[in-house]
Amino acid sequence: MTIYLDNNATTALDPRVLKAMLPLMQEEPLNPSSIHSYGRAAKAHLTFARKTISDYLNCQPSELIFTSSGSESLNTLIHGLYRGGTILTSPLEHSCILESVKRYPTKMTMPDQIESALSSNISLMVFSAVNGETGAMLDLEHIANLANYHRIPLIIDAVALLGRGPITLYPGITAMGFSGHKIHGPKGTGLIYLRSNHKLTPLISGGGQEHGLRSGTENLPGIVGLSKAIELINPSDFIHMQTMRDHLESNLDAQVNGNETSRICNVSNLSFPGVDGEVLLMQLDLAGIAASHGSACSSGGLQPSHVLTAMGYNQDRIRSSVRLSLSRITTQSDIDHTLEFFKNLFANNST
Amino acid sequence: MTIYLDNNATTALDPRVLKAMLPLMQEEPLNPSSIHSYGRAAKAHLTFARKTISDYLNCQPSELIFTSSGSESLNTLIHGLYRGGTILTSPLEHSCILESVKRYPTKMTMPDQIESALSSNISLMVFSAVNGETGAMLDLEHIANLANYHRIPLIIDAVALLGRGPITLYPGITAMGFSGHKIHGPKGTGLIYLRSNHKLTPLISGGGQEHGLRSGTENLPGIVGLSKAIELINPSDFIHMQTMRDHLESNLDAQVNGNETSRICNVSNLSFPGVDGEVLLMQLDLAGIAASHGSACSSGGLQPSHVLTAMGYNQDRIRSSVRLSLSRITTQSDIDHTLEFFKNLFANNST
Repeated sequence: MTIYLDNNATTALDPRVLKAMLPLMQEEPLNPSSIHSYGRAAKAHLTFARKTISDYLNCQPSELIFTSSGSESLNTLIHGLYRGGTILTSPLEHSCILESVKRYPTKMTMPDQIESALSSNISLMVFSAVNGETGAMLDLEHIANLANYHRIPLIIDAVALLGRGPITLYPGITAMGFSGHKIHGPKGTGLIYLRSNHKLTPLISGGGQEHGLRSGTENLPGIVGLSKAIELINPSDFIHMQTMRDHLESNLDAQVNGNETSRICNVSNLSFPGVDGEVLLMQLDLAGIAASHGSACSSGGLQPSHVLTAMGYNQDRIRSSVRLSLSRITTQSDIDHTLEFFKNLFANNST
Repeated sequence: MTIYLDNNATTALDPRVLKAMLPLMQEEPLNPSSIHSYGRAAKAHLTFARKTISDYLNCQPSELIFTSSGSESLNTLIHGLYRGGTILTSPLEHSCILESVKRYPTKMTMPDQIESALSSNISLMVFSAVNGETGAMLDLEHIANLANYHRIPLIIDAVALLGRGPITLYPGITAMGFSGHKIHGPKGTGLIYLRSNHKLTPLISGGGQEHGLRSGTENLPGIVGLSKAIELINPSDFIHMQTMRDHLESNLDAQVNGNETSRICNVSNLSFPGVDGEVLLMQLDLAGIAASHGSACSSGGLQPSHVLTAMGYNQDRIRSSVRLSLSRITTQSDIDHTLEFFKNLFANNST
């Protein structure tokens, strides 16, 4: 038995997504840029996928750019929209944002202090709608209004929001970055929403695919899979995840990190006072429960989370924290087994 | 019946590649950066794929960087290796090179005049091993020796070489860019070979995957598929393709574009004097034969090929040209049917 509670690192591919992708991997060689019948068939698939997603996001199909990952989406947006001046962002962002803004003058603020951090030299804002490690949510409408009022382009990292909560493209939002594999979609897929009146310098140039904004032969199976994964997003799953998450938290004697603001439905970042988080993760792993320390990046989980550190938690609390992240396929039984694990663990520890 | 002769645009996925990918799309959620058992399993797949490819290319596993496309690979190499000075390249390159070098001082030369074009301000060279439109081959050993002698980093676009001819990483070659979908591998996959003593500024930064050189959660099914596609490359297929191609050309009354130098085994860029290439492509398409005008890019094939133009062919010859590109699954019957098509076409035209 294995219980997977690391869905903010990656999710299992939905079998219905795979089913949608398979015909595109089994039959003809499809390149949407080719002018022969195969090429036209490929183009039709591409157009349909784009339309499906634009219907979900309530935007124009031409406002969508397919990429290979959330990281590529955010890198593209930051480098492609930056036009001088200072970028306003937060120390809580994903490393793909923090590493990208390093190239430019940057001012850091906590997400709840954006309004007071705004000054005349701010030319671009980059914030995550949902923090991937804690699930803490940005007041997106408020920040979008600020961006609109001050006429500052606003990039939203929506990787941890898509598939976990509703998305509204408030007028102040210039662009959003998304990832496929976090929503039971295919790995190697990402997406950009870019409001139509904004110019973007492409990160990858060449054949001029994606309206000239992202070159390279389209990953058609991936695009169709991503479109299917988005089509499968169902608000009733948000309620299911929240019910599971709340059931978990209400039966555990743990401190909830990021609980100061609203949180998305699927994340539980928990501190167990006196427990070593690394050891706990190993015990969870041995018990067949996959969890994590925070963001999965190539350095592993050995450094203390930069997110929890920036939130001001002390090192003891950070060291005793683990992230459990649920998905729509997480079951009541998964949660009950996890609760059983913790019950046994603390029973053994206290003897 | 459909005959696919546009394999330099994209190829059909090999069923054995799909078979290698499927387990990674059906089972666990695999993120090689996660430290739990799923993560470790993912890491093992990644390591094995990298080793398989490094064995084929005869390089170190650490010299390989997985990307999402040939275009991303070449964009990454050009922007990531450029350190000032002038780039030497040719007007025959793929648009992903020509668009990328636009950002820097650039000197253009024909590939057979590289030696005389070298001057003290050249700091980086970018050339394709094989021209994708004509199949014309670079004298790679000679150029690599020049690069080595003059100590100028050399980037090789090997997209149209991989799977069509042997690859030797001559000491003067700094880096190579590859694509997966041109070798019966998955779309949305690319590869970089980067010699170990060279520093690269990443195009996509973030979580630090791929030795910090290409961030974003690894596209594990894609990587495993690419590795399988490379494992399946068989030199006997080069001979098969050349035999088919030569059979085609020797039975057609056409001028062969790019025949001035050695050509790779699978490309036939043919001019039929007095024929309109666009019309011919449509007739081929109606007859169930997929071919192209040249490089498939989002602009379609409506502009005259920049490659044939730069090679000095006159507009009449360019307008009357089509590219037939074979793969290892092209059969004698495919070629015979194609010859039959041309025979009927010219019989009808001359009546």
